Amino acid sequence: MHHIAKPLPGHDQEPAVWLVGAGPGDPELLTLKAVRILRAAHVVLTDDLVNPRVLEHCPQARIIHVGKRGGCRSTPQAFIERLMLRYARQGVRLVRLKGGDPCIFGRAGEEMARLARHGIDCGVVNGITAGLAAATGCGIALTMRGITLGATFLTAHTEDGRSPDWQALVRAGTTLVIYMGVATLANTRRQLLSAGMAAATPVALIENASLPQQRLCRTTLAQMQADATAFGLRSPAIMIVGDVVAAARTAQSHAPRRRRQA
Amino acid sequence: MHHIAKPLPGHDQEPAVWLVGAGPGDPELLTLKAVRILRAAHVVLTDDLVNPRVLEHCPQARIIHVGKRGGCRSTPQAFIERLMLRYARQGVRLVRLKGGDPCIFGRAGEEMARLARHGIDCGVVNGITAGLAAATGCGIALTMRGITLGATFLTAHTEDGRSPDWQALVRAGTTLVIYMGVATLANTRRQLLSAGMAAATPVALIENASLPQQRLCRTTLAQMQADATAFGLRSPAIMIVGDVVAAARTAQSHAPRRRRQA
Repeated sequence: MHHIAKPLPGHDQEPAVWLVGAGPGDPELLTLKAVRILRAAHVVLTDDLVNPRVLEHCPQARIIHVGKRGGCRSTPQAFIERLMLRYARQGVRLVRLKGGDPCIFGRAGEEMARLARHGIDCGVVNGITAGLAAATGCGIALTMRGITLGATFLTAHTEDGRSPDWQALVRAGTTLVIYMGVATLANTRRQLLSAGMAAATPVALIENASLPQQRLCRTTLAQMQADATAFGLRSPAIMIVGDVVAAARTAQSHAPRRRRQA
Repeated sequence: MHHIAKPLPGHDQEPAVWLVGAGPGDPELLTLKAVRILRAAHVVLTDDLVNPRVLEHCPQARIIHVGKRGGCRSTPQAFIERLMLRYARQGVRLVRLKGGDPCIFGRAGEEMARLARHGIDCGVVNGITAGLAAATGCGIALTMRGITLGATFLTAHTEDGRSPDWQALVRAGTTLVIYMGVATLANTRRQLLSAGMAAATPVALIENASLPQQRLCRTTLAQMQADATAFGLRSPAIMIVGDVVAAARTAQSHAPRRRRQA
């Protein structure tokens, strides 16, 4: 039923494929490791949500866009995985570039599993996930001591129609960081109220986290639907629900400076 | 009760203080933004858990270690905050460097609030939090589709003795990513079993996530105490509990290569 793994061996060779987190949008939130791997890439399969400025680190690479914007024309996951297999077998240095962190709503698990089934080794490089960047951009400490014991990152809806156990989430009392929640905001509000969450619970809605065009709408659970409409909230946005939102200092955190066009 | 914030203004001046996430250990997981800010720093107040190699980006700065290792001699939080205020008032470029991400168990909230009360502006730079690095280092996709709708980052104990609502967490069904859990591992196991979590639920215990000396112990909820003891698990470690652990590809992810001493 269980086994104890030995210490990981030192891997001296590079994996055939790297899954790399491009971060939340601000190209300065890329890691040094991501930059090193991009600079050496022959082919980069990139999500459409990745900031084009991130691709400036790999001018030598062939760039292939494999978009998956919610609701829009997109590249099927199976096709992306076939492309990955094809390039990996050609022996080129392949990077699969994803917004945020590959392990948080990034489908890294599916792509890793597919590669593993074909005996192809892959490495993963973490990125800053949008929920964390959204919190930071608004001065919200997601796990502030004395207020909550943790934070839950979740999606409010899935393709197979499953939805979270809102009652259990409310009882657990962790800060909720909801991804891809704009389309289902009215339902999320109704579910959280039905589950007994206080109507006055503070909520932050953050559009374009970490980018110069970042926008923040502070509201409450009861008011969030009306406020989101008045605000003109658009995807992609992050919703943070919990008392830590009210504890955030009133001074805004520093959004990245707008860069002048050269 | 609520208000709608206008778009954030472009901040053209730097804040007086930067809270910077140093990441989980691997110095290559630092962001480009963190490197830029460290290079310009006059004074860096750094947690002991930060990899000394991160400090190679700021040879020009005065480095002050403000340790806070669990159980060991440490610098009280109030003293750290007084130091921050003193340097901020002197007008030096001050960086407060923290392991992981400042907004996840990093006490950024307390430090931001203290600075804000004294009218001092601060900026925050995200880092890769240890729980994400631990997952990636073991090929675990924390939010794998079809298995779970999310992931909860939490501590198993607090200084004020509060503990999580384990029943609600189990019912919510999110992947649990538990920080600072080695000392209370036996209690966590008992609580999760009592709350109805299946004894066979897969668990990964990861020591020194992202470092060359990273070690992984794969086990189950029922066996995790015995296995952790046999393994000699030591802090700091991350515990990941949930079915996504079993879905991880068997091939290990790439640990950073050991670097030879120059």
